[in-house]
Order: sequence, then C-alpha cells, then structure tokens
Amino acid sequence: MKLYTYPSAPSPRRVHLFLAEKGVDVDERHVDLMSGEHFKPPLRDLNAECTVPVLELPDGTCLAQVMAICRYIEELHPDPPLFGNTPANRAVVTERNRWVETNGFMAVADAFRNTTSAMKGHAVPGTRPVAQIPALAERGRERYGWFLEELDAWLGQHEYVAGDEFSVADITAWVTIEFSSWAIKTEIPEVLSNLTRWYRAVGSRPAVVAST
Amino acid sequence: MKLYTYPSAPSPRRVHLFLAEKGVDVDERHVDLMSGEHFKPPLRDLNAECTVPVLELPDGTCLAQVMAICRYIEELHPDPPLFGNTPANRAVVTERNRWVETNGFMAVADAFRNTTSAMKGHAVPGTRPVAQIPALAERGRERYGWFLEELDAWLGQHEYVAGDEFSVADITAWVTIEFSSWAIKTEIPEVLSNLTRWYRAVGSRPAVVAST
Repeated sequence: MKLYTYPSAPSPRRVHLFLAEKGVDVDERHVDLMSGEHFKPPLRDLNAECTVPVLELPDGTCLAQVMAICRYIEELHPDPPLFGNTPANRAVVTERNRWVETNGFMAVADAFRNTTSAMKGHAVPGTRPVAQIPALAERGRERYGWFLEELDAWLGQHEYVAGDEFSVADITAWVTIEFSSWAIKTEIPEVLSNLTRWYRAVGSRPAVVAST
Repeated sequence: MKLYTYPSAPSPRRVHLFLAEKGVDVDERHVDLMSGEHFKPPLRDLNAECTVPVLELPDGTCLAQVMAICRYIEELHPDPPLFGNTPANRAVVTERNRWVETNGFMAVADAFRNTTSAMKGHAVPGTRPVAQIPALAERGRERYGWFLEELDAWLGQHEYVAGDEFSVADITAWVTIEFSSWAIKTEIPEVLSNLTRWYRAVGSRPAVVAST
C-alpha cells in the first residue's frame, strides 16, 4: 500500500491526520505539486485527474478520493472508530462530514482556485483547461463566512462536529480552517467562541500536533 | 422512520431508486417544492437547509445528505449490497460514486441552478440568497460533456460504474443523466455507445422501471 502525497496540501492533509489519529504508518511517495510532478508519470498513470492523494492498493487499484481512502483505512484499522460506532451514529458522521465538505471545504476551494494566479486556467482539479470565475471566488468567500457561523452555533450545543465523539468530520473541518488561513487569509472571527474552543482543542490533540 | 421527499427531484430520486433496488418501503411524506413547502414547517424545523430528501429516524435524528441516508439504509438492509462487498470493493464504490457526484451531478446542478429563472437568487441549496453566475452554468455544461465522454470510456472496459457489479454509483450516474435531460436539455451523444448500452441496461432494471 503506497500513498502518493504532498502533505501540506489540504486534501492529502486530511488523509495524514486520519492516519495519525489511527496510529497507522504507510509507505509515502512525495509528489511535488510546486514543480508540476503530478502531471507526469508515475502519478499521471495512476490517476488520470493528476491529483493527490492517491492510495495504491496491493492489487494495483488506486483510490484518489479522500473519503474512499479514509473509509478503506477505517475498515482495515477500525480502532479508534472515526466514522462512528452505530448505524445511526455512522450516518450522522457521514452527514456532518459531507456538510463540512460542501459548505466549508468547497467554499474555500472555490475562493482560492478562482483567484490564485498559480491556478489560472486550472480552476478545477484535473488536466482540463478551466478558466477562473471571479464571481465564484466571491461566492465561495461569502459561503465560507456562513459556514463558520453555522459551525459555531452547532459547536455551542455539541462538543465535536458530528456530536459527542471526535470523528473524521472534525478532521475535515479542522483542515478546512487551516486551508482558509493561508489560501484566502481568513481567520476565525473572535466572536465565534464555540468554534475557537473546538479549534484549539483539535489543534492540541497529540496526533494533530505530531503531524503538523 | 419517515422520508420527506419530492420524488421527481434528482436528490430524492437517488434515494427512491436505492430503496427500490433494496425492496424496502418507508413511510413517505411529500413536500411540494413547486409551492415552496420546503421553506415552511415541518421541513424547515427538521432541516435548516430546507432541502429534500430528509430521513427522520425513530429517535428524531434527521439525515439530509443522500449518501448518509443510503448508507444508513445499507446498514439496516445489507442485501443486495449496493456499496460493494469487500473493503477494496467498497472503497472503489465510494471512489466512483464521488467521482460521478463531483464531475457529473454537480456539473449539471451548476448548469441548471445558475440559469433557471425559478432559482434566481437561490443558486445554491439552502435559505441564503445566492446570485446566479452565468459563467458557472457554462462551466457546468462543459464539464458535463467531459464527464459523459470519460464515463463512456470507463464503460468500454467495465460493465457498471464501479466495476463488475451494479452499485449506488450506477444510481447516481443514471439519475444524473435523467436530471440533465430535463434540466439542461442534454442527451447522450450517439457516438458514446458504451454509455448508451449501460443507460439502457440500468433503465430496464425492474426496480428502476417500477419506480419511474
């Protein structure tokens, strides 16, 4: 099992934090996104979209979606559970994680990819030419503000993003906030005290400290 | 367990096809999207985003994300498996399903929501005011064309969207194509013969015929 990765990019980072929380080591191959290594073999031959992370399984199957990789690791290493531990609880983790991806992570990605000069002509992951849309960047930035407010309200009533237990949804949300801080220069507004409490708690977890 | 739904809309439709393939009946409450019933109680109180489907569990927990609902049903009714049957196989189903959602379903949704007059000021699901972006509709339409070509190439080598077995990824892809036909008036190009073969095969499945 090999993980093709560029650990500081947000999608690989989700996988690295997940592995750290599990206490699982995998064979890593770094792919330098800065020099365009992802558009060349071996990565291009493993994942036509030329994105990282890619997890190559022993039989050659390649997984390039973060949640497919995390669910696979969860099956091989079920403890500690990061996807919940009852059918209802697992459904809530799936629900909340997707909510974070759609309203938080994708909002930041829209804001970043549609403005940064490095992604001019590549506003969508993959090899196709896609022009940036400044209005979509604006929309992403506005939606991200709503996401922070809504997450703060939730965290006023729950300890973690999916309820009482730390889960993969916390990893997605924490990486989203880290991503926003360098990609679109956004900090958590001071008034969002529940979110600040949670952000500090997650940031001081041993696995998170060790992998950052 | 109650399903709040508007069966002809694409996201609820994914759940209805999933239930039909499982042979599972649930208590349904129809919510008329045409008259704006989703912005009023009871739905508004169950799901702040005011979208359908919503599955209300016996303890009052509400799931509003299609994949959370489908995974929950899969846990309660594992046969026939629609999420794969080994760890690697389940990972591939997750991978392929997400690929269809991102590159197909969301592309059609972008094209539709950013042009249709009924969604002026509501270009993103939820209750927040979000202006339409015509350039994003164009991008969605172009990306959807690429998605059809790539899916056709895949289906030249595999019987189904996630490999040898019918899965939830086929439901997502089939509903995406149905969605595109009325929402953005796009048909499968005749030259995409693998996709046409698969589309007809899925459309003639007893569960699909019975639920459409």
